[in-house]
Amino acid sequence: MPTGTGPKAQRSGRDRARMLISCPDRPGIVAAVSDFLFTQGANIISSDQYSSDPSQGTFFMRLEFDLPAIRTRKEEIARAFEPLARSLAMTWRFETLRPRKRVAIFASREEHCLLELLWRWRSGELDAEIPLVISNHEILSEAAQSFGLPFVYIPVEPEQQQKAEEEQMHRLADATVDLIVLARYMQILSPAMVDRYPGRIINIHHSFLPAFAGAKPYEQAYARGVKIIGATAHYVTTDLDAGPIIEQDVQRVTHRDNVDDLKRIGRQIERSVLARAVAWHLESRVLIHGNRTVVFR
Amino acid sequence: MPTGTGPKAQRSGRDRARMLISCPDRPGIVAAVSDFLFTQGANIISSDQYSSDPSQGTFFMRLEFDLPAIRTRKEEIARAFEPLARSLAMTWRFETLRPRKRVAIFASREEHCLLELLWRWRSGELDAEIPLVISNHEILSEAAQSFGLPFVYIPVEPEQQQKAEEEQMHRLADATVDLIVLARYMQILSPAMVDRYPGRIINIHHSFLPAFAGAKPYEQAYARGVKIIGATAHYVTTDLDAGPIIEQDVQRVTHRDNVDDLKRIGRQIERSVLARAVAWHLESRVLIHGNRTVVFR
Amino acid sequence: MPTGTGPKAQRSGRDRARMLISCPDRPGIVAAVSDFLFTQGANIISSDQYSSDPSQGTFFMRLEFDLPAIRTRKEEIARAFEPLARSLAMTWRFETLRPRKRVAIFASREEHCLLELLWRWRSGELDAEIPLVISNHEILSEAAQSFGLPFVYIPVEPEQQQKAEEEQMHRLADATVDLIVLARYMQILSPAMVDRYPGRIINIHHSFLPAFAGAKPYEQAYARGVKIIGATAHYVTTDLDAGPIIEQDVQRVTHRDNVDDLKRIGRQIERSVLARAVAWHLESRVLIHGNRTVVFR
Amino acid sequence: MPTGTGPKAQRSGRDRARMLISCPDRPGIVAAVSDFLFTQGANIISSDQYSSDPSQGTFFMRLEFDLPAIRTRKEEIARAFEPLARSLAMTWRFETLRPRKRVAIFASREEHCLLELLWRWRSGELDAEIPLVISNHEILSEAAQSFGLPFVYIPVEPEQQQKAEEEQMHRLADATVDLIVLARYMQILSPAMVDRYPGRIINIHHSFLPAFAGAKPYEQAYARGVKIIGATAHYVTTDLDAGPIIEQDVQRVTHRDNVDDLKRIGRQIERSVLARAVAWHLESRVLIHGNRTVVFR
Repeated sequence: MPTGTGPKAQRSGRDRARMLISCPDRPGIVAAVSDFLFTQGANIISSDQYSSDPSQGTFFMRLEFDLPAIRTRKEEIARAFEPLARSLAMTWRFETLRPRKRVAIFASREEHCLLELLWRWRSGELDAEIPLVISNHEILSEAAQSFGLPFVYIPVEPEQQQKAEEEQMHRLADATVDLIVLARYMQILSPAMVDRYPGRIINIHHSFLPAFAGAKPYEQAYARGVKIIGATAHYVTTDLDAGPIIEQDVQRVTHRDNVDDLKRIGRQIERSVLARAVAWHLESRVLIHGNRTVVFR
Repeated sequence: MPTGTGPKAQRSGRDRARMLISCPDRPGIVAAVSDFLFTQGANIISSDQYSSDPSQGTFFMRLEFDLPAIRTRKEEIARAFEPLARSLAMTWRFETLRPRKRVAIFASREEHCLLELLWRWRSGELDAEIPLVISNHEILSEAAQSFGLPFVYIPVEPEQQQKAEEEQMHRLADATVDLIVLARYMQILSPAMVDRYPGRIINIHHSFLPAFAGAKPYEQAYARGVKIIGATAHYVTTDLDAGPIIEQDVQRVTHRDNVDDLKRIGRQIERSVLARAVAWHLESRVLIHGNRTVVFR
Repeated sequence: MPTGTGPKAQRSGRDRARMLISCPDRPGIVAAVSDFLFTQGANIISSDQYSSDPSQGTFFMRLEFDLPAIRTRKEEIARAFEPLARSLAMTWRFETLRPRKRVAIFASREEHCLLELLWRWRSGELDAEIPLVISNHEILSEAAQSFGLPFVYIPVEPEQQQKAEEEQMHRLADATVDLIVLARYMQILSPAMVDRYPGRIINIHHSFLPAFAGAKPYEQAYARGVKIIGATAHYVTTDLDAGPIIEQDVQRVTHRDNVDDLKRIGRQIERSVLARAVAWHLESRVLIHGNRTVVFR
Repeated sequence: MPTGTGPKAQRSGRDRARMLISCPDRPGIVAAVSDFLFTQGANIISSDQYSSDPSQGTFFMRLEFDLPAIRTRKEEIARAFEPLARSLAMTWRFETLRPRKRVAIFASREEHCLLELLWRWRSGELDAEIPLVISNHEILSEAAQSFGLPFVYIPVEPEQQQKAEEEQMHRLADATVDLIVLARYMQILSPAMVDRYPGRIINIHHSFLPAFAGAKPYEQAYARGVKIIGATAHYVTTDLDAGPIIEQDVQRVTHRDNVDDLKRIGRQIERSVLARAVAWHLESRVLIHGNRTVVFR
């Protein structure tokens, strides 16, 4: 199968790493961090920063850099960074690009979001392992398997949701999954499951949130007569359709478009919005700040 | 002052007219209407039609045509059309391009929507008379007058809204106004006023409705962390921010945009969305169908 | 495999048909045609018209209608229409939705355009038969076959283009193809081939034409430092990259995007632009007028 | 007159400053610069960097920071930075937000770009002084003066361009202008004039460059039958319409839009594209790199 040219995240030698930081804002953070990295021998490739408020706010930073032999030196460098991180009250993490993040995709009956993710994954645009595709229907089994991926059918019977979720969690734990992507998975996850993967479950909602939260958003959009429809990729929280938004996009529609047209047009939006959100998460471009996200693109 | 090239609606000789029709859908309407116009000597310039449902729905039609001496023959032709209209249970109207529709603009303190309308009006893009600019503040007086337009300052004191509205209605009646445009007019109109101008009051709401209806939409949008903001032009009904939507548009924003940035970006969306909605209304391109609009662009 | 909800073109009973007309503009055409259809028992579902100039121009019309037993009555109705068509000097055709149009897809090494077409075809959005996928490389063979489609590998050796094209033409003739889609097929067709399928070969060019015609458009776009890139679907003529444009779309890029990024972003534009153009052609929404197109959407 | 909420550039106390740097890329630049600023007492508000190639390329950096008493300490800090700048072979500059940059606007007969700039200037979105509006026609005199700005009418007679330009240059020198904005100024500047303001003349071209360079771009676009039109703001070089692009934007059009429609639609694109480009230049967000621009938004 053909492979596309690599996305930005892959333009790395083996020595590429990232550092993600958030801490109370104060002068000198950039100087301290960049000096530390320079001293360790890093060449900074890209650096993004954002402060919610320079005087009292939270400071966010994402650095991507090359550092010779980073994979063997990772723990040593993290230890060396610890005193500085502590003195600035940082929440931080240090990432190498390998091993890749491990993603489980949940789908139901509709294929468009799943296929988009799998295509981009195969073409190299999503830099991840996909150990698992889980569905409450059997219909997408062939699609997953045509990409060489294990497909796990876990039916969700009414009144039996808990049992199904236990099996899901078991599978996810076995596969040591870092991220769950709900690719038009038409079931609501329990708080227990959501709490186990905080900031690590991405859902695609088929409307421009917060408009048309809940069920049947295209029907709602048609009834309201909007001239633009959209889709929203967001982190899942226990508050339905209200988690931090990662990405949204929209498309014009007209009075001529009925509900089926809206669904058809919406599918194109959904799949590209979800694919972008997943790519950004995998590249650690998304930081959560309360119920908002900082996206360093 | 320079005048721009004329918009579509003005590309008319003196013999240009329009016909707007809605009726229960059934076979033969297009044939009957176009045959009638042909018999009267009309040359159809453009024709748009839409059926909410070919079997049981409502049929909408907009025709633009040249008909020699239409202005003197208008009533005769309308009389001749009456039997056909009745037999098909039509709601219909027949319009010549002159005299122009008469528009009153309401504004408060912000100038951007008012100025956009006046600029497009002066350049010929809005084909209307503007007998009146009304405001509850004096601040935009100079702006209106620099376009040679009468500016009426009607303060709206708390508890005195009714008195203010009486004066507004008096002025509107005097000026025989066809359309009221709320160009960021920050007061809620009473049901009495709304009922007097059904389908003839256009408001610009500074959000992508139905998201963030009500007050302070940019503050709401910031708090929710949306990645796209928008504006909505809609007909005013007694149900606040819930009337039929005419036009919407949106713009991307990021985590870096604070509430003031959203307002600044939003102003550009608001003014162009409102200007387009007003232009389409003036060209009779907008038909109301329940709480939705049919827009023949 | 799941099937999506049907697109507009398929919302037809078995009695759906279309009429496509172009002729010198003059008064009475709409009346004459709609009267004819009404007399035959048709219910017009949608009607679009356009005149390049009401006084001397060309008139274009597309009607979609339901007419009971149209498939058996097709020839009879066409005969009945002939006198009117002749009197108005019409170029016209009459189409039923079945049998479907037959499409051959040409591809080379890149899969994204081919897969997008096949996915939309499988989901019912492209209402066509695909008797043939032709490629000058073997690499996409598996992709085509996974959709159950015959894949024909016809290598194009340097200096042997004519021989390859003879085989292509032979295959196309055998399959009685109505439309050829060049889905990133990286070979130039000979004038002989182009002439055999006038207005029936659609190409996707990976730039916003007429900018960056010819080879390596993304490299050209990068060198010029544009802030927006695009893709263009057009009919192929013997004048390279200069045929009538059907559809274009664009996406923002920044100085951070290198040539590989432009290619990656561009792939998303290419596949959706090509898919829309092919859908519109299949629904007979595209009429060619000189080197421009009329697209009745 | 009402003033809008302030744009990003104005969110400054009196102690806000910027540093713009370009130099050969090598490790340690970020650390050295941020350490220097920290030592001087600066609090970095925003920092953007870009490297055309981490190994051999050019490194660009823009920092915005608060530094107490910067206006009195400006020269002292610049002197202190000099050794570091020299050791890293930097091209650099150090800017305080006051005094504002001084902008001359050139216009001809069309008002839309001029008015857009003046509105945004009055609302505070363009943080500049405008000592001069120059035109080769008298028609916009009233517009400029209604904003309280000096309007200089310098006719450009055929064969007398040099004489006119001498007067322009004289006026520009008198007004110590930092930036010239060609707001649909329909004359070509001489190489002498262009050379005097390198990277400091911004033009709006009414097409999506490089498509339709030269005269009558809307006529060209219509003839080519494009489905999207655009506008391009670029720095003026002696190579006509080929200078570094700052910003572009586009809008969909259809076969129904004739040349006048394209001009009307295009005016809206032109004015917003030009206004954005000018704002970014004034905020020193645009760095020129060969024939491309780095835009730190």
